Amino acid sequence: MPPHCHPTTVYLSAPDMVRLVRRKGLSACIAGVAERIEREFLRWHDFDKSARLACHSAVGVIELMPIADASQFAFKYVNGHPGNHRHGLPTVMAFGVLADVATGAPRLLSELTLTTAIRTAAMSALAARKLARPGSRSMALIGNGAQSEFQALAFRDAVGVRELRLFDTDPRASAKLAANLAGLGLELRLCTSTAEAVRGADIVTTVTADKTNATILTPDMIEPGMHINAVGGDCPGKTELHRGVLEAATVFVEYEPQSRVEGDIQQMPADFPVTEFWQVLAGTRLGRSHAAEVTVFDSVGFALEDYAALTFMRDTAAELGIGDTVELVPQSQDPKDLFGVLRDEPAFGTAPAAAAAAFAVAARGQRLRATA
Amino acid sequence: MPPHCHPTTVYLSAPDMVRLVRRKGLSACIAGVAERIEREFLRWHDFDKSARLACHSAVGVIELMPIADASQFAFKYVNGHPGNHRHGLPTVMAFGVLADVATGAPRLLSELTLTTAIRTAAMSALAARKLARPGSRSMALIGNGAQSEFQALAFRDAVGVRELRLFDTDPRASAKLAANLAGLGLELRLCTSTAEAVRGADIVTTVTADKTNATILTPDMIEPGMHINAVGGDCPGKTELHRGVLEAATVFVEYEPQSRVEGDIQQMPADFPVTEFWQVLAGTRLGRSHAAEVTVFDSVGFALEDYAALTFMRDTAAELGIGDTVELVPQSQDPKDLFGVLRDEPAFGTAPAAAAAAFAVAARGQRLRATA
Repeated sequence: MPPHCHPTTVYLSAPDMVRLVRRKGLSACIAGVAERIEREFLRWHDFDKSARLACHSAVGVIELMPIADASQFAFKYVNGHPGNHRHGLPTVMAFGVLADVATGAPRLLSELTLTTAIRTAAMSALAARKLARPGSRSMALIGNGAQSEFQALAFRDAVGVRELRLFDTDPRASAKLAANLAGLGLELRLCTSTAEAVRGADIVTTVTADKTNATILTPDMIEPGMHINAVGGDCPGKTELHRGVLEAATVFVEYEPQSRVEGDIQQMPADFPVTEFWQVLAGTRLGRSHAAEVTVFDSVGFALEDYAALTFMRDTAAELGIGDTVELVPQSQDPKDLFGVLRDEPAFGTAPAAAAAAFAVAARGQRLRATA
Repeated sequence: MPPHCHPTTVYLSAPDMVRLVRRKGLSACIAGVAERIEREFLRWHDFDKSARLACHSAVGVIELMPIADASQFAFKYVNGHPGNHRHGLPTVMAFGVLADVATGAPRLLSELTLTTAIRTAAMSALAARKLARPGSRSMALIGNGAQSEFQALAFRDAVGVRELRLFDTDPRASAKLAANLAGLGLELRLCTSTAEAVRGADIVTTVTADKTNATILTPDMIEPGMHINAVGGDCPGKTELHRGVLEAATVFVEYEPQSRVEGDIQQMPADFPVTEFWQVLAGTRLGRSHAAEVTVFDSVGFALEDYAALTFMRDTAAELGIGDTVELVPQSQDPKDLFGVLRDEPAFGTAPAAAAAAFAVAARGQRLRATA
C-alpha cells in the first residue's frame, strides 16, 4: 500500500478574502486577476468548456459554472437574486473550488462573492483595453450597486478613465458609490437619467440587477466610437440593451454557446455575428477597427474567469499566509476501507481542541508547501 | 433598510460526519436516508432535474450534480478515479451544499464521501425491497471496495439478506470486507470467481470501480428470479453487465435521461424499455411481476438521492448538536455596498480568537433554530 496521503483542502473564508484584498490592495488584485484571465484566455483550447448550469426560480437564479484543463478542475456556485437587499442579503453570493483532475481531490474552497466582483471588473477592463478608443477618459456607470466601485477602479487603472457619470434608479446607490470613490482620483458627476450620464461618454458600463428584458440603453443614446461594457444582461430574460444598439455595433462575447442563451444577444437571431474575445487577445480576430465604430462587450461571466480568479487567490493567499484548511474528505489508513473510518478511534476520537491544533499544523504545512 | 441578516452556513466536515454516523448508528443512517429518498421520489415532479455535468479525463471523472425544488437547491461534487488507491486516496470523494432557492444563500456545506456510500446503499436497498423476490436471503457481492460494507448492511437491514458471497479481483479487498462484517449477523462465503458467487444467489450486487466496458455478469450466470443491483456502471464507457443480461431482464433506472448516457443501458438502443423507479414507488408502474422474472436496478446515482441525504444529515446534525459554521459570504452593513467590507474595520478587524467565539455563538444559534 502507498504511504497514506490525506487530501488537504485550503479554505479561504469571506473574512480571509477581505484580509487578503486589504493586504494585497484592491487595485493589485484586479490587475493580477486580469493578467491571469488574459493568460488563460490565450490557451482557450486547453479547456473543457461548457455553458453553466442554471436553476431558475421566480425570484432569481442559482448557477454552477465548471471548467477544467488537464490539471485542474474549477467550479463556482453563484446566485443572482435582485430582491435580496430586502432580506439584507447581497444580490450575488458565490463560492468556488479548485480540484486536481488527476485524482479529483478538492484542493481549494474559497469565497467568491468579493472575488466575483473583482474578476468581473478585471474582465471588463481587459476587454475595454482592447475595444475602447485609445485615450478614453470618461465613463457612464449605469447601475451603482455592489459591483460598481470595482468597475470604476478597474477602468481607472487599466483604461485610464478619469471621469465617471453615475446613474441609478435608486439615488442612494449613486450616493453610496460616490462616497466610496471619494479621494480615489476620479471626477464624479451624479446624473438624473441614463441619457444624461451616457451623453458624450467614451465608455458606457451597464451593471444593473433587475431580472427583466430592460432597455437601459436605446439606439438614440449611442454615439460613434462608444464602447459599451454590458455586464448586467446575463441570464435568459435579463437584458440591458435595446436590440437596435446591438444591430449598430460590433459585438464581442466571452463564450458564444453560453452568451447566445444568457447575453444581450439572446434577443438576436442565432446567426447574429459575434466575436469571442479570446480571439482578439490571440490576434486572430480584429478588435476595434476604427475610431467611429461602436463596440459592445456583451459580458455574462464565464467559468474560465473564475478559474483565473481562483488560481490567483490561491497563490496570493499562499504568498501572504492567509487561509485555513478544511477536512472535506475522510482520512482512513486504507483508501479502500471507507467503513474503517467508523472504527478507527485514534483518527477521529481526538478532543475538539486537539483536532483544532492538528488543523492549524496542517494549515502551516500547506502554506510552506504552497510557497516553496 | 431591513435588519442586517448574515447568511449562516452550517459546516459538516468529514470528522463531523464520522461522529454523526457513530452516534446515530450506521444502520439508522442508512434507514433514515432510505426513508428520505422514498419521500422525495414520491414527489418527483416537484424537482427541477437535470443529468449531471461530467468532466472526463483519461484517469477519472469529476461531476457536479444539481437539483432543486421550490425551496431548496442542492448539489454534489463527486469524482470517480479507480486508480486513486495508488495515491493513497479514495476512489470516490464528495461534498455538497444545500442553498435557499428564495435567496441563493448557502445553508449547508457537508462532506459527502461517507454520505455517498450511505445514500447509495440506501437507494439500492430501497429498490431491492420493491424488486427482489420476497424472502430473498442470499446476495452475491461483486466488488468488495469502499462501498461494499454499506451495501451489505443495507441489504441485511432492509431486505433481510443473511448470506453473502464475496468476490473481488483483489482477494485483499474481500478479506477486508469479511473482517469488517464479522459479528454483524451475516454468513459470509469468500468466492474465487463471480460465477461461483452468483450461483444460486437471490440478489447480485455489482459495485466495481474500473472505468471500462466490463462484463462482470454474463447471461449464463443469470438464474430465473434474480434481482441484479448494478451499482458500478455509472459513466460513459463504464459498464458491468453484458447486454444479454439486460435483454433478458426488466430494467429499472433512477432518472432515464441520465441513465441512458451513464448506466449499463448505454449499451442498448435509445428505445430499450426501462422504468423509472419512482413510478414503482408511486404505484403507477409495476415492479416485479412474477417470481421467475429477472429484475435489474441499473443504478448510476441521481442528484435527488443526494438532496435526500443532505437534508437527512442536516437534520441529524442539528438533533445531535454536531457541526460548525463557515463564513462563505461576506458580511456588510449594507448588502448593496460590497466595497464597504474592505473598509468596515469593526466587522473584520476582530482578533482570531474573538472571531472564533463569534462563530461558536452563531453555530449554537443555528442549532437552536434548526431543532426548534
